[in-house]
Amino acid sequence: MSADLRLQTLLNSDSHCLHSQKQGIVISSRVRLARNVADQPFRRSLEREQQETLTQSLLHTCAKVLKPEDHIHLQLDAISDIQRKALVERFMVSPELAASRRSEAVIIADDEHCSAMINEEDHMRLQVLKSGLDLGAALQEAQNVDRQLETYINWAYSSTFGYMTSCPTNTGTGLRASVMLHLPALAETKELRNALRAIGKLHLAVRGLHGEGSEATGHFYQISNQRTLGSSEEDIVERLEYVIRDLVEYEQLARESLLDKKRIEFEDKAFRAWGILTHARRLTNHELIEHMSWVRLGAATGILPIRDWSVLDRIFIRTQSAHLQLQHQDADNGNERKKLRAELVRTWLLGAVR
Amino acid sequence: MSADLRLQTLLNSDSHCLHSQKQGIVISSRVRLARNVADQPFRRSLEREQQETLTQSLLHTCAKVLKPEDHIHLQLDAISDIQRKALVERFMVSPELAASRRSEAVIIADDEHCSAMINEEDHMRLQVLKSGLDLGAALQEAQNVDRQLETYINWAYSSTFGYMTSCPTNTGTGLRASVMLHLPALAETKELRNALRAIGKLHLAVRGLHGEGSEATGHFYQISNQRTLGSSEEDIVERLEYVIRDLVEYEQLARESLLDKKRIEFEDKAFRAWGILTHARRLTNHELIEHMSWVRLGAATGILPIRDWSVLDRIFIRTQSAHLQLQHQDADNGNERKKLRAELVRTWLLGAVR
Repeated sequence: MSADLRLQTLLNSDSHCLHSQKQGIVISSRVRLARNVADQPFRRSLEREQQETLTQSLLHTCAKVLKPEDHIHLQLDAISDIQRKALVERFMVSPELAASRRSEAVIIADDEHCSAMINEEDHMRLQVLKSGLDLGAALQEAQNVDRQLETYINWAYSSTFGYMTSCPTNTGTGLRASVMLHLPALAETKELRNALRAIGKLHLAVRGLHGEGSEATGHFYQISNQRTLGSSEEDIVERLEYVIRDLVEYEQLARESLLDKKRIEFEDKAFRAWGILTHARRLTNHELIEHMSWVRLGAATGILPIRDWSVLDRIFIRTQSAHLQLQHQDADNGNERKKLRAELVRTWLLGAVR
Repeated sequence: MSADLRLQTLLNSDSHCLHSQKQGIVISSRVRLARNVADQPFRRSLEREQQETLTQSLLHTCAKVLKPEDHIHLQLDAISDIQRKALVERFMVSPELAASRRSEAVIIADDEHCSAMINEEDHMRLQVLKSGLDLGAALQEAQNVDRQLETYINWAYSSTFGYMTSCPTNTGTGLRASVMLHLPALAETKELRNALRAIGKLHLAVRGLHGEGSEATGHFYQISNQRTLGSSEEDIVERLEYVIRDLVEYEQLARESLLDKKRIEFEDKAFRAWGILTHARRLTNHELIEHMSWVRLGAATGILPIRDWSVLDRIFIRTQSAHLQLQHQDADNGNERKKLRAELVRTWLLGAVR
């Protein structure tokens, strides 16, 4: 199967790494390692031709580890704008990489659990994605891939600082570990602000669904380490997991408290969100995510009788703008997309209770 | 059956005079005549005992025309606060009459089409209510009752001014004719403001659901004559009907235009309102009326498959606060009423599509 056909298949499928557990507090765990080739200028200082040569060389070398049998190798200038945006929506490439017009590339495992961006901010950013809370396994797998790559590539490394990166905030381990969480009950009980403030003091960053600068729509949060220097990879991941376990427990307590003390208000919000999503004829992505937050909470607490939880994850990925445009020719304008989004959401949600 | 039991039965029933036609633009027509007994001070100048005597005397006389076999005769101080409020919700007595603590009375036909308030602002205010646009018949019936009463009572009448009333704005015919309309499409297409401005120039008054000072919630409007002097009753009613027919036509055109040019936005609003009303677990009366406005419009235009239109009218009357309190002991606080209202609305609406 050609890379293009494999990409189409991937973009038409549910995301394998974002199927959250039934309880649905932790959606996914992600580890990414930033690496740069020794004796080469950083990406921002590369001339166009140098970058092209480096991209080809890295693609060639990576193919020995991230094998073309089960990894799609893509030069980003060879795919359409909409395909690039869809890859952003699936968390496979960064918005920056998708927007660039030079020779960048990405390698994506067919099941999306592992991917590598080539010539984004660093020469290589390796990502491993796991559903649920599983940072340890994600780190192990990323390190394993990295070690295999190191038998072929000499990474820029300083015995004082560790791995050298384009931006000093990544220097050292080059590790960013992050967890995506759904914290609606903490938000509803107003305890979230305190919890997030405490997290800030632990040198962890809190961001919205799509990373830096994105809003925390629908009470989805990404929490990640800010420090990459001075601790081992294992320590960074362990400390983050420790905090996440605490947050999950707080969220669980907040859910129990809502069910116990504000059940009717809670049921009202969950059922209204369900009523709107199963009836609306036009939906923006933002509104969808806001209502889905209550539907997820309703489903997780047994208030809404949703049998097929995977539908909730599917809706998140496959009703985003670029995904709609890829699947439906007439979704090339905002009004048609709103209509189509509402149709898909209705069909899928109603199917999930049958 | 005792008056109290008959009142209970009435307050537990659907309103017979507010079942609007399927198209649902005109809900009801109302005519009221203000009358005062000759050689008696106006109500505001009556001593307590004088008022008591006059109330008894009027009740006695009225019984000859509005016969106790099919009219409930009620002294308002003999019924509960909540029953009084429920009568206001059914448009049978004014809020002012319900709030007063002196000897006022009301006579209500078992089917509510005819009623008389005794010692409200005037000694007697006779009301005839018809569903749909039927002002001529309402006027005829009110005049017929008035003529019969005149064989027993000498009304205060001046050959120069006509019937004398407590407030000069009613002097002359003592007639207030009003029509309750649902004009959501005109409101949506922004043409309503112009239409209502034109109506103001014709010396007609525009008010919300519950008359003077009330808001036009859910695009329900009451339109009535402001002038009571210098024209015959028939002319006043005819001119009002003429304007109403115009408004109905404008509303019809606006509905067709919505269906034609903004169908998807329109469907979206109607289905969302339906989705919320059939799923919410708490509803204020205000929110209910706002959403019911779209549900009515959806039903009237065939977008929502509602088979039993009478349910829409039932919901308006019987989910109001005092009605809920009368029917359910635990509806004595706002939170319980919101819950109960949502339950009734859900049950009735879902029943209406079966």
